[in-house]
Formats: sequence, C-alpha cells, structure tokens
Amino acid sequence: MQNFSYKNPTEILFGKGMIAELATRVPAKTPVLLLYGGGSIKRNGVYDQVKAALKKHRRVEFGGIEANPLFETCLKAVALVKQAKIKFILAVGGGSVLDAAKFIAAAAVFKGRDSWEILRTHGGCVTAALPVGTVLTLPATGSEANGNSVISRAATQEKLHFTSALAFPVFSVLDPVTTFSLPKKFVRNGLVDAFVHTMEQYMTFPSAAPLQDRLSESVLQTLIEVAPVTLAKPRNYEARASFMWSATLALNTLIGCGVPQDWATHMIGHELTAFYGLDHAETLAIVMPGVWQHKFAAKRAKLEQYGQRVWGVKNARAAIARTEKFFHAIGMPTRLGDYGIDAKEAAAKVATRFAEHGYAFGEHGDINAAAAAAILLQRA
Amino acid sequence: MQNFSYKNPTEILFGKGMIAELATRVPAKTPVLLLYGGGSIKRNGVYDQVKAALKKHRRVEFGGIEANPLFETCLKAVALVKQAKIKFILAVGGGSVLDAAKFIAAAAVFKGRDSWEILRTHGGCVTAALPVGTVLTLPATGSEANGNSVISRAATQEKLHFTSALAFPVFSVLDPVTTFSLPKKFVRNGLVDAFVHTMEQYMTFPSAAPLQDRLSESVLQTLIEVAPVTLAKPRNYEARASFMWSATLALNTLIGCGVPQDWATHMIGHELTAFYGLDHAETLAIVMPGVWQHKFAAKRAKLEQYGQRVWGVKNARAAIARTEKFFHAIGMPTRLGDYGIDAKEAAAKVATRFAEHGYAFGEHGDINAAAAAAILLQRA
Repeated sequence: MQNFSYKNPTEILFGKGMIAELATRVPAKTPVLLLYGGGSIKRNGVYDQVKAALKKHRRVEFGGIEANPLFETCLKAVALVKQAKIKFILAVGGGSVLDAAKFIAAAAVFKGRDSWEILRTHGGCVTAALPVGTVLTLPATGSEANGNSVISRAATQEKLHFTSALAFPVFSVLDPVTTFSLPKKFVRNGLVDAFVHTMEQYMTFPSAAPLQDRLSESVLQTLIEVAPVTLAKPRNYEARASFMWSATLALNTLIGCGVPQDWATHMIGHELTAFYGLDHAETLAIVMPGVWQHKFAAKRAKLEQYGQRVWGVKNARAAIARTEKFFHAIGMPTRLGDYGIDAKEAAAKVATRFAEHGYAFGEHGDINAAAAAAILLQRA
Repeated sequence: MQNFSYKNPTEILFGKGMIAELATRVPAKTPVLLLYGGGSIKRNGVYDQVKAALKKHRRVEFGGIEANPLFETCLKAVALVKQAKIKFILAVGGGSVLDAAKFIAAAAVFKGRDSWEILRTHGGCVTAALPVGTVLTLPATGSEANGNSVISRAATQEKLHFTSALAFPVFSVLDPVTTFSLPKKFVRNGLVDAFVHTMEQYMTFPSAAPLQDRLSESVLQTLIEVAPVTLAKPRNYEARASFMWSATLALNTLIGCGVPQDWATHMIGHELTAFYGLDHAETLAIVMPGVWQHKFAAKRAKLEQYGQRVWGVKNARAAIARTEKFFHAIGMPTRLGDYGIDAKEAAAKVATRFAEHGYAFGEHGDINAAAAAAILLQRA
C-alpha cells in the first residue's frame, strides 16, 4: 500500500426530502448565488423545493451552465458574483453545474490576471475559494464530494481539470427523487461514468491493497446490479438511491487511497469530447477497453481478479468482453464508428494535442501521444 | 435505504514516516497536551518520533491513561489542561488514549457543573471541544476517525459512551510501523473489535442497501484474509497496513450510512468489562454469537447472505459457526466459561444494569434486560 493523505470534509445529506435542509445549511446573512443549467430543475420541481427552503435567503440566480461547462460562461457568473458581493454559491444540477460552481468559486477570489491559470496549473495556483453547496440531480461525476472540476474553453477547444482541497463542497444534498425525471440517456451516461471512475482507481496492477480492491469491486458490482433496474424503472427509489450513492463513492477519493491510479481513459476521452462533442461517458466507454487492450500485459493480473470476482469469468480477455457487453446492454456504444468518427483522424488529432501538452498518463506514465493514437486506432 | 447525514472531517495521514507530518499539522503557537497511556510509546520509538516532529512546539505531557480510560484519570488531565491553558490535545496511543483525549477535550470547556453529564447524555450536552489530533498505535476502535468515546467510572463500575460531531479528530496519523511491537493479544483484540464493529452495522435485516452491504463484506473479508498473516508476521508491513485501514473503515461511520444498526453486542459487552474486567474485544467475541442465536429468525436473511458471500457456506447456522471458528483460530475464546465467569451470575448482573438504565438496544430495539440475560445464559 502506498502512503496517502485523505480528507473529505463534505457533508452528505442523503434521501427523500433532504432539500429542506438547505434552510439551515446555507448561510443566512449573505446573498447566495443559485447556479443551474438548462432549466430542467424548473420543470421537475427541484427549483421550487430549493426556493421554498431558501425563502428567507437573498438569492441571485445564474442559469445556462452547459453540459460541458464553458470557461466563457463561467466568466459571466464570476462577474455577477463580484458585482452582487456573493459569498456563497449553491449549485443545483448535475456534475457540469457543480464543476462550474467550483471554478467560479475559485475564480471569483483569484488574485492573478487570468483565471484560466487555475485550469492551466490544474489547481496549483488556487489559494482561496468561496464556499460551495450543492443539490445534485444527476448521479455521475462524483463532483458532489470531491475537489475536482472540469471546464472547457470554446475558443481553443480545450478541456482541462483542476483539483483543490478548497473546492470540496461544504455540503451536498442527494435526493434520489430529484433524478426520477432524468432522460434515460443521462442515466446510462451516469452509470458508465461512475463505473469508469472506479476503474481508473482499480484497473492497474496489484499493490497489496486488498481492502481498496474490494471497495472498488463493491461499487462495480452494485452498479452492475442496479443498472438494468434503474434504467427500466426510473421511479424505483431504492435502485436510484443505490446508483446515486455508488456514483458518489466512485469518486469521493476514498477508493483511490494508497493505490496506483490510471486516468488515461479520462484524458483521452476529454480530447474526444473537445474535438467531436461526444458526451463524456460516451468517450469513456469507447476508450477504456482500448486502454485495457493496449496495456494488456501490465493490467492482466487485475483484469483476472476483476473478471473472477465481478463477472465470474476466468480470464482477462473475457473480463474485457464482459465489460463491453455490459455497456452495450445498457445502450452504450463502445466504438468510434458508432458515432461516424474516423479512427485515424481521431487518433491523429488526439495525438497532436497530447504531444502539445507533453501528456503522459496511466499508472506507468506511458500513455503518451503515440499510445493514445494506438489506443484510438483500435476503437474504429 | 434510510435517509442519512454523513460528514467525516478527519484528515488521515497514512503510512510509514507520516508522524513527521505533525510538525506542520499541530498548531505552533499554543501549548500542546501530549496524552498517552502506559508508556509503551517510550519503548517502541513512537515517543521519540513525536518529540522530534514537535521540537519547536511547547509540550505538556500527561501519561497513564488506562486500557479502559477512567473518568477519574481524565479529570486530572482536565485540571492540567485548564491550568496550562492548553488549546490542542495530541493523543498518542490506542483507542483508549484517543477516547480519553476526546472526553478531556469536551470536559475542559464544559460549562456544566459535572462533566459526567457528557457521558450521561451520550454527548447531547456537548457544545464545544478543544481540537484533538491523534497518532494511532493500535488498530481496533476506529476512534481515530469518528466522534465516539467510551469512558469508565471506577467509583460506580459504569462504562458509558458519548458521540459528538465536535469529537472527530482534526487529523490522525496511521503509521503501520508503530504497531509492529504490539503484543499478540492486542492484535487479536483489534481484529475482533474491527470485525464486530462492522457486524454491528451489517448483521441486521435486508434494507435495500446493496453497496453498504458490500462495503461491510469488503472489510470483513479483508480482516479474515490478513488476520493470520498479521498475527504470524507482526513486521509484515502490508498485512499490518491493511489491518489498520480496515479497522478505520470499520468505524469511520461510512459503512453504517442509511442502514439499520444493532450495537446490542457492544452494550452487553461494556457491562461485562465493567463487572469482570474482560478486554472489550473479549466481551464482543462472547456476546455476538449469542445475539445472533437469540435473534436468529430476524437476522436469518443477512446471516445467509454473509455466509454465502464471506465464507462460501449455504446456511445461517453455518455462518455463525464459521465466525466462532474464525475467532478461535486467532486465539479468541467465545464463552464466559473460558474466563471462569458464571453465566447465571453475569446474566443477572447485566440484566439488573440494563433494567436500571431502561436499556433496549438492537435494530428492533428489543434487546432489553430479559433479552440480555437470555443471551448471556447461552454463552456459558
């Protein structure tokens, strides 16, 4: 087991009716920025619940955060925060809104000239941030209980992340009922996103961390078990609750304590989203099996353990096949061709971007431009 | 799944050499109370490491915290804290020292007349506490990452707990190397303690919480796997590290989120320690199989799930038998008779105490005086 530091100060308020807790959790004596996305919260009753809980608070609203939140949009919110002297941001929505809130919270008090620095340094220059609370309406990213944020820049087709201990939400409300009205595609995406988050911290090489391995397998097994139920019966509270809690545990940084991590799938996936506009989860389902094939020898021992414990299959190739089959069963394609994307072109574009940034990811730090290209060529 | 709130603000600093982190984690401009137990930290090098890390800090020392920390001893430390104007307590030792530190931290700033109130109200009256940091040298209680504390009172043979969000340590250093010199009996006790903590949050009835179930099973399986290794090879870092992290996860309150909990074994066990001086873990190994037998019908579904997933056995009785066999294999007796204690006498004493306090524990709230007596009569 590797040495590690672990701290997760976010308070989780989980369950039906918990939005009412906002009344006491959001600071009362300061104007609050209510941040949201495309307005679905106004159709599904979440907005009304939030408004009712905050009826004694001063609120300023900012809607229109995109599915892949744009730096350009966030800057407008930062201007509003400064102008209205906001001291607390309440993000209501999915991971995109939460990620945007974290960036806005850091950018609003950033001392430098250009807040893109926050992303360019992956959070290294963050020394302060406004407090953020969240009401999560889409289980997927784990953003409700970590210090990560991913922001895209329209002008340059870049998608970068930052991480900071200051970006953990103060609290996050997780009410499974708020997710009942989600389009099926969002649920499918969230299931894959949580599944791949877990894999990034698990599918590496044996590292004498049997508890962490089993915790990860617990999340994977639960997602596999609840996926068909929660897709077929969106109003089944229990399945939705287990999906929601699994997605949080997949990336609240606990299962990654003391173990090697990969994240090559995510980094290649971010470029595919930036170039082709694919949903984040769609890119993950394409790339991950490719990373596993490309690093087959290095990952073989863990693939075998995963296959045996999670799928009851004996060998590593079967474990990969079962994973793709699971994605297909929940309606998630796993090939670039499924989206009409030319693999050679994608490989060339992503490789160029990896080379520009000098990227080298993966648990062995060897997923560089050439490796990324080789991985994508396989995924035609 | 039940609604829940979860917050665990403790920073974990895990691994070899992490005691050095105290230099930056302990506040520099205030005298620190260094609290410890019987002095083993002076023999195993931990004291020297702590002293080296705190060489620029003002330290006041208080040693002699007992294995079941006494209220009477804690009061002496509280007097010292007040007299020396201590603003931070660093607990170095096992769960007893940590529990004592939490009580001292709350009692030192308690506004009432008699700080026994803190225990009598199980923490209900705690509104402030000094910050506590810990260096854990005995994996067992989970006290390093929760807000619980158990204190005994010599004068009245009482053993009571308190819980408070204010009692979570600010940080806890977990260096597996500090545990290499532990007597075998302490390791055995710690294994059983962590195992039973997990069971108190798991062995109840099915509650549509498949992730929580699997997380608990992960801790149980890891403990079962590492127990023989860490007992036979105390200097095997990897086994000790997994034992240590398992004991923390067993009671950092995560696995209990949203599920029914039992705790009858602990409450009966506390009385056995109070009356007969048995080690805490010794009492748990005696009582738990009795609770399971007594509530067999109510716990049968979970016993079967546990038997199948953890031991690969088909029925609930076999699951109980395998658990006792596991305890025996690591040198832990499971009967009152093994300590020369008369079961009838023990049953009568514990029942009287339960009746006095009006106790009723267990996930169905039905482990009252009569049930406690029936459970102990079985454990002759």
